[in-house]
Amino acid sequence: MSSDWLERLGGYPGVWKRRHLLGLEDLSAEEITCILDKAVVFKQLLAEGHRRIPLLAGKTVCNLFFENSTRTRTSFGLAARRLGADVVDFSAATSSLSKGETVIDTARNLEAMGIEAVVVRHRTPGAPHLLAQNIHCSVINAGDGAHEHPTQGLLDIMTIRQLRGRVEGLTVALVGDIAHSRTARSNIWGLKKLGAHVIVCGPSTLVSPRWQELGVEVSYNLDEILPRCDVLNLLRIQFERQTRRPFPSVREYAHLYAMNRQRMARTKPDILIMAPGPINRGVEMTAEVADGPQSAILPQVTNGVAVRMAVLWLLAGAA
Amino acid sequence: MSSDWLERLGGYPGVWKRRHLLGLEDLSAEEITCILDKAVVFKQLLAEGHRRIPLLAGKTVCNLFFENSTRTRTSFGLAARRLGADVVDFSAATSSLSKGETVIDTARNLEAMGIEAVVVRHRTPGAPHLLAQNIHCSVINAGDGAHEHPTQGLLDIMTIRQLRGRVEGLTVALVGDIAHSRTARSNIWGLKKLGAHVIVCGPSTLVSPRWQELGVEVSYNLDEILPRCDVLNLLRIQFERQTRRPFPSVREYAHLYAMNRQRMARTKPDILIMAPGPINRGVEMTAEVADGPQSAILPQVTNGVAVRMAVLWLLAGAA
Amino acid sequence: MSSDWLERLGGYPGVWKRRHLLGLEDLSAEEITCILDKAVVFKQLLAEGHRRIPLLAGKTVCNLFFENSTRTRTSFGLAARRLGADVVDFSAATSSLSKGETVIDTARNLEAMGIEAVVVRHRTPGAPHLLAQNIHCSVINAGDGAHEHPTQGLLDIMTIRQLRGRVEGLTVALVGDIAHSRTARSNIWGLKKLGAHVIVCGPSTLVSPRWQELGVEVSYNLDEILPRCDVLNLLRIQFERQTRRPFPSVREYAHLYAMNRQRMARTKPDILIMAPGPINRGVEMTAEVADGPQSAILPQVTNGVAVRMAVLWLLAGAA
Repeated sequence: MSSDWLERLGGYPGVWKRRHLLGLEDLSAEEITCILDKAVVFKQLLAEGHRRIPLLAGKTVCNLFFENSTRTRTSFGLAARRLGADVVDFSAATSSLSKGETVIDTARNLEAMGIEAVVVRHRTPGAPHLLAQNIHCSVINAGDGAHEHPTQGLLDIMTIRQLRGRVEGLTVALVGDIAHSRTARSNIWGLKKLGAHVIVCGPSTLVSPRWQELGVEVSYNLDEILPRCDVLNLLRIQFERQTRRPFPSVREYAHLYAMNRQRMARTKPDILIMAPGPINRGVEMTAEVADGPQSAILPQVTNGVAVRMAVLWLLAGAA
Repeated sequence: MSSDWLERLGGYPGVWKRRHLLGLEDLSAEEITCILDKAVVFKQLLAEGHRRIPLLAGKTVCNLFFENSTRTRTSFGLAARRLGADVVDFSAATSSLSKGETVIDTARNLEAMGIEAVVVRHRTPGAPHLLAQNIHCSVINAGDGAHEHPTQGLLDIMTIRQLRGRVEGLTVALVGDIAHSRTARSNIWGLKKLGAHVIVCGPSTLVSPRWQELGVEVSYNLDEILPRCDVLNLLRIQFERQTRRPFPSVREYAHLYAMNRQRMARTKPDILIMAPGPINRGVEMTAEVADGPQSAILPQVTNGVAVRMAVLWLLAGAA
Repeated sequence: MSSDWLERLGGYPGVWKRRHLLGLEDLSAEEITCILDKAVVFKQLLAEGHRRIPLLAGKTVCNLFFENSTRTRTSFGLAARRLGADVVDFSAATSSLSKGETVIDTARNLEAMGIEAVVVRHRTPGAPHLLAQNIHCSVINAGDGAHEHPTQGLLDIMTIRQLRGRVEGLTVALVGDIAHSRTARSNIWGLKKLGAHVIVCGPSTLVSPRWQELGVEVSYNLDEILPRCDVLNLLRIQFERQTRRPFPSVREYAHLYAMNRQRMARTKPDILIMAPGPINRGVEMTAEVADGPQSAILPQVTNGVAVRMAVLWLLAGAA
């Protein structure tokens, strides 16, 4: 039976050699494409009504979240369970960290209990890398500060590829709070590797001109770039990550950068509107854009489960 | 095998057409009876030692609780797992709501991950109805402010029916904090539909005389109605839901409304003492009443799991 | 299939008659040995890759934790799931206790929902005993104040027995905060029953001379006893359990009692360094000791899952 699922997936891919997924900056285009291809199969299997694809039966996945999360934690949990894995939920609030234990000791302890993969979110950039160097099981970065959030980047790219048929040659603008966004970083690395043209756009306080050095177009004027874009990924204003307010007011931000009916009239007709969520309605976009025909926000969420199944299987399913 | 369970349940009932359970006010007597009849079968199956009745295998139920809960959340979780469903626990404390997301967006996101039923508790009356209008999966109201708590009403009525053999013609008094009690409302609608005589009894600050317009007897004097009652449902004084104290003191409340040995001597000998819990011992009743031979408090809890299995199956088990 | 597992375990042991595990003080040497022997088999089965040994299929285990915990709650949860049981996680933060319910009422309610075992942690010594007297299902003490933590004692002893081949005749020192340590108490009772020589060692403010009356050696000088010890169990300084600081400074404590390279040079070469964790690196021991070749800290954690599988099976698996 396990072999039937493997057949549907085209076998365990020879190209895949990694034990950890720490960021898209490290991956080759071939590796990213491998994950996306497998995610498409998992999505198809889910759509056919298969809710238990027990390729990770007997394995245990630990959600080790040191920051609040709804969708990412739940999405990984569902992905793991649909692969037949057990899931251990660990959150900072109920942990021994309040007793002074280090993150590495916590992870080592969980590993000693018999866990095959750790999905970690931490406010410190590099925390997942530190874990990967110190434990033997697979580490998946579910967001490390403003650094990377690779599965979010992957599900965004999967959504573009599925709804536009390709990534190469498309113009994708990431709009808003680039400075505090791990989603932006993962998207930039992944999209560039697959041949997209990437624009980062937002207030100058939130968008560094140095992105140009990495081959990314920098813009401070959404209206100017709007007609050229195939995809807009509207990043959330991360109020909780900012020590000082980087723009005069939310109203001012929305005036310059929110997608609304007027701006939609000036885009390509088949533009994709994406957002990593949770969205602030009225800030990054109006309700009619969020719920409108060009919105890919909910397909992104659906793809997230498939992408995470693919990642968990590729990392923990080899043996 | 699934067909064996269906046979024990007498098949999926033709009378059941609903996708949501929002309140007992909406249901017909026939629909309420249908739920109770199926709950009796599930209770019997559990009593025979069947702990896995996989009628919802491959389905996912999400507990979406925006208020603290022990028994309701756990009871739904156990009910779902005994039906073979996966359970996703979502609580406000760890959610994106702290990032400003709306309840509807949260629910839509969960739905996009592939969830068949949402069990929701929220402090705002009508929040489950709002969700039901905006998402496609089943919504079960697990308590919306002081409005309704339909599965609590159902398990109360199931307990009466089982221990008294009928509901019609019985006199059931709801005692205490009627104004803040969703349990009271769900009991009133359900009991009236099944032909019981309902009395609401408590301090005038907590019991509106307008209940009379709906065919409910209103009393401010427990001792006066006591000899006529077949069932007393002693509602919890919801200290946490009150902005001002509606009676001079807890001692004064207990003096007038607490069930104790003296009052028990004046009831019908086969009176049922019920309480939705958690109980405040010494406030709504003394310990000897709570733990005494007429107490149906723990059978209520046991029936709760069976009622919730019936509801989940009826709502999510059709396809 | 269930009979195959039973065969591997040598059958359900006739010596085991208990329904609860409240402390090692109550157990005979024969009962302790029975648990350890079964734990060894479970550890072997896990090592062979068996992750689902469904001896408790259809049973439900409730983690009823009124104090923060990582490893104990997770370890019990994994143990229960590997035995095929359902796990209900209940924590004080989301419970009806904030509504004034008693611990006994909470447990009775959970039991009425159909639960076979309750794993309870509470700050009050004796709370598990109170539950055991008032509910019918199995109660496992996962830590009651400074009183006992029997599964921690068992996993410590299992680790000693496995890595030293025996317990009888060994000299085991418990170092540090004896006064506030439930781990110390459970170790003392268990180790004494199996014939070890036990030393308690720490500052006089944390080590009572009255332990001598129970046949335990008392020392205030680690350096003096060091060369005689076969095992050092370095207890965590429980900063959160102390109302007043019992020693001048952490630096002073570490100077007198921390295991470091210098002290390691004066021990027997095959000494075992153990710690119940979470450890405060630099307080009870330096990093090089914690991560060094004599450290048994992670094997302790691995053994914890096996010990808890054995306990859950012995208590809840008979019927």
